[in-house]
Amino acid sequence: MKSIYLALVHHPVKDRAGAAITTAITNLDVHDIARTARTYGLAGYFLVTPLDAQVQLTDAILAHWRTGAGVKRIPERAEALRLVRTCPSIEAARDEVAREAGEAPLLVTTSARALEASELTAYAALRPFDRPILLLFGTGHGLTDDTVRAADHRLPPIRPEGYNHLSVRAAVAITLDRLLGDG
Amino acid sequence: MKSIYLALVHHPVKDRAGAAITTAITNLDVHDIARTARTYGLAGYFLVTPLDAQVQLTDAILAHWRTGAGVKRIPERAEALRLVRTCPSIEAARDEVAREAGEAPLLVTTSARALEASELTAYAALRPFDRPILLLFGTGHGLTDDTVRAADHRLPPIRPEGYNHLSVRAAVAITLDRLLGDG
Repeated sequence: MKSIYLALVHHPVKDRAGAAITTAITNLDVHDIARTARTYGLAGYFLVTPLDAQVQLTDAILAHWRTGAGVKRIPERAEALRLVRTCPSIEAARDEVAREAGEAPLLVTTSARALEASELTAYAALRPFDRPILLLFGTGHGLTDDTVRAADHRLPPIRPEGYNHLSVRAAVAITLDRLLGDG
Repeated sequence: MKSIYLALVHHPVKDRAGAAITTAITNLDVHDIARTARTYGLAGYFLVTPLDAQVQLTDAILAHWRTGAGVKRIPERAEALRLVRTCPSIEAARDEVAREAGEAPLLVTTSARALEASELTAYAALRPFDRPILLLFGTGHGLTDDTVRAADHRLPPIRPEGYNHLSVRAAVAITLDRLLGDG
């Protein structure tokens, strides 16, 4: 099985009206999604942002939990946060995975919005993971249409009852469990 | 299919050393878990706390999003937060479900800690949901041993790689998807 990586994209993503924006990194997304990524054995968790100030903020959070007071108090947290790295763009994350895994990854998006069935790939169809994978999740109101269109695979949206407003933290957890869970 | 309810327990739960404590309600758990509960069609989401000040705080959060400025800005959020109610104890939540559903619910716990296989019920074994269900999730370091022991069913922990430190928000999302998802 090849390595699986995750990227939480803060740019470019959509605002409520569909325009491309840059969102802020939130402390909670760093922690929650790192713990989920560690639970499912991912090889890395990229926070994608082009903003230097956001990278510095993230570095400060990570330093606290990896080497500061945090690692003494909650060592399991350090283990999860070791997976986290910042990256200026989706392309840079893809290049970093290609270097590390020795092979270009498949880009896989998840999407809350409706796509034609012919545009979607079932969760089970991604197995047995014989290529490295970079899973892209959007913050704000989701990945841009260009990002979704350019991906190698688009997973079906998670909305069993038609309600379409899951948090990105929950969407990541459900997607990784569907792809990699033992349940 | 009978109704399924969820309770996020703030008392009694364990601290790091295993002692029974009361944790604080967090704004994020209210929002994230309400959105997940709505996604999977749950009938109600209880925040279990015996503290009046915490109930008042929660009521203020809910009022903002259900009837205040929040409902205009993000109407989908109001739809999720309508599921939320506070309750002073697990027993009171169970009684409220029994009244509403016309039948006492099965209490089902999830647990991060190791139990004997004979003490566990597989996710699939809870179907077809011919009794109402109240799913209990613990904050802090988890539900007390007494709560877990007294439940009708205990679901297996979610730790495919052995790492045992998922956020409760992620655990709720994965559990509901395993029980009710279309994936």
